[in-house]
Amino acid sequence: MATPDEFGLIARWFAPLAADEPGAFGLGDDAATIALAPDRELVVTTDMLVADVHFFAADPAGSIGRKLLAVNLSDLAAMGADPQCYVLAIALPAAWGWDRLPQWLDGFVEGLAAMQAEFGIGLSGGDTVSTQGPLTLCVTAFGTVPAGAALRRAGAKPGDIVWVSGQIGDGVLGLRVLRQQVELPAELADAAVERYRRPLPRVALGRELRGRARACADISDGLVADLGHICAASAVVATIEAERVPLSPAGRTAVAADPALLTHLLSGGDDYELVFTAPEDLTAQIRAAGEAAGVAVTPIGSIDAVCTETAGSDGPVRVVAANGHPMPAVSGGWRHF
Amino acid sequence: MATPDEFGLIARWFAPLAADEPGAFGLGDDAATIALAPDRELVVTTDMLVADVHFFAADPAGSIGRKLLAVNLSDLAAMGADPQCYVLAIALPAAWGWDRLPQWLDGFVEGLAAMQAEFGIGLSGGDTVSTQGPLTLCVTAFGTVPAGAALRRAGAKPGDIVWVSGQIGDGVLGLRVLRQQVELPAELADAAVERYRRPLPRVALGRELRGRARACADISDGLVADLGHICAASAVVATIEAERVPLSPAGRTAVAADPALLTHLLSGGDDYELVFTAPEDLTAQIRAAGEAAGVAVTPIGSIDAVCTETAGSDGPVRVVAANGHPMPAVSGGWRHF
Repeated sequence: MATPDEFGLIARWFAPLAADEPGAFGLGDDAATIALAPDRELVVTTDMLVADVHFFAADPAGSIGRKLLAVNLSDLAAMGADPQCYVLAIALPAAWGWDRLPQWLDGFVEGLAAMQAEFGIGLSGGDTVSTQGPLTLCVTAFGTVPAGAALRRAGAKPGDIVWVSGQIGDGVLGLRVLRQQVELPAELADAAVERYRRPLPRVALGRELRGRARACADISDGLVADLGHICAASAVVATIEAERVPLSPAGRTAVAADPALLTHLLSGGDDYELVFTAPEDLTAQIRAAGEAAGVAVTPIGSIDAVCTETAGSDGPVRVVAANGHPMPAVSGGWRHF
Repeated sequence: MATPDEFGLIARWFAPLAADEPGAFGLGDDAATIALAPDRELVVTTDMLVADVHFFAADPAGSIGRKLLAVNLSDLAAMGADPQCYVLAIALPAAWGWDRLPQWLDGFVEGLAAMQAEFGIGLSGGDTVSTQGPLTLCVTAFGTVPAGAALRRAGAKPGDIVWVSGQIGDGVLGLRVLRQQVELPAELADAAVERYRRPLPRVALGRELRGRARACADISDGLVADLGHICAASAVVATIEAERVPLSPAGRTAVAADPALLTHLLSGGDDYELVFTAPEDLTAQIRAAGEAAGVAVTPIGSIDAVCTETAGSDGPVRVVAANGHPMPAVSGGWRHF
């Protein structure tokens, strides 16, 4: 077989992913075109994932492909955007060679294709290069909103309820299972690892929250850190009640065995749930949005004015334990950098 | 000083680059919005650059920043697009640490800012991560064209004149100077290295060619390879006359000393000039487009039907030497992968 070749790779593995995007021109041009419906505004996000920083190099190729799109779709979800398409840049380790590459690309492309089908998006363009370093992937994803309707981090107001979607902490829990730092029954361990490897971006919920939520972010850095970003952008502070934060069966089991773990679940990253705020009188509408999107939404706290005594000295988010005392050890979150 | 921190980096170095992009939200949200004027179509390109593959890790940081935007702007130029904005993902080597990082970022951002000012674009968003591997940069750049007016690789027709902008071969010549594979007088050597490090994307020319050129590509893989892409997309073949290809003073001097080098200048990459075709009766318009854009445009050959005897067995582009004989050693071009 011939040496790996950029054009051969594109034709065999990537062009099929672009078949339904007319502006991709079969990945044969210098750039792609993206048509935008009238009165829509483009929403753009870019995320770079590096092997052994954001995923394990040995992870199944399909789950790497899924996660790559999931983290970008999660950013679009946080803005309330309808996903449209994406471009992909990929630096393949030169050391892999032609004996390893086809099998890996088969799995990777299968993961991308599954996400494309699930979220109705297509590949518009890309770049394939070689690196002496680890596998490095960069997706720029495109969505649209009615002009001016994008959800923002700024906008939370004192009195708002703080909500989260789904269950919190499985990202960091799955990572700890993989690192053998936490022991769980096999079924629960597998579930947490699956959530770490295959996060589910809350695209349908984000769309339903347009015009309802006042502020929204996805949980990539950790619940406390990302709510902190909302607070910083909105010039408010927040209080969350730890025992109201929804945990998965795996999370509940792990915390029952080691209560100190709760702090890590609330501040760990990679959940890719949404954290958002809404006025109390929209509570029924928020619950309806969750039902329409098929995902649980749970109120976990409230937004306070920055001048009140609730403003903690160590950050904009105060986490209160079941006994009413602050949990001071909750960190500002996960830093990939 | 504190440990490097993604949010600190963004605030200090990158947020100023986003100051004039209202949809960047100060780089504080999960995604950016991009507003599109009515009747315009978005043109999108993405390029990933890896240290010691696409540039030397020791290159001045400012020229890395300039080149990163230049290669993306060159893709937009090839589509005839007016540049609008870009997103930037950057994987910084973990080993650099805080003693090296500020100085490097100062220079890098200065290079980006210079290109922003020159081409009227701004930073819309990005991602900053850490890598155990080489510095890896990914830009996705956005431009617009009147709907349907993007230049394409497909569209060349038999009888078209093949044109190039500027001078060809300085990209690969500069690289060879840096690798000490070519000796030139200092002034010419410096000029070639400067062209390798700081390519000039032909944005103004691309814009002028809308509605005039039938097919267009930028020269990143090499003149012969990129004209070959036009031929493949257009189902035609081409003949170029080697002695008509414009060389720089450095290129002419190097070829005078080593005539075999000409082949490499015609097939080397990283020129970031435009190669395009147009019907013969538009010759005056093409020359006017070059004058309006302030760049030389030179006819170097012609497009032939694929069924004629000019179709070479070793590729769609036949290069003819001054003596009228084919130059069979001209390769299909530079492969980054």
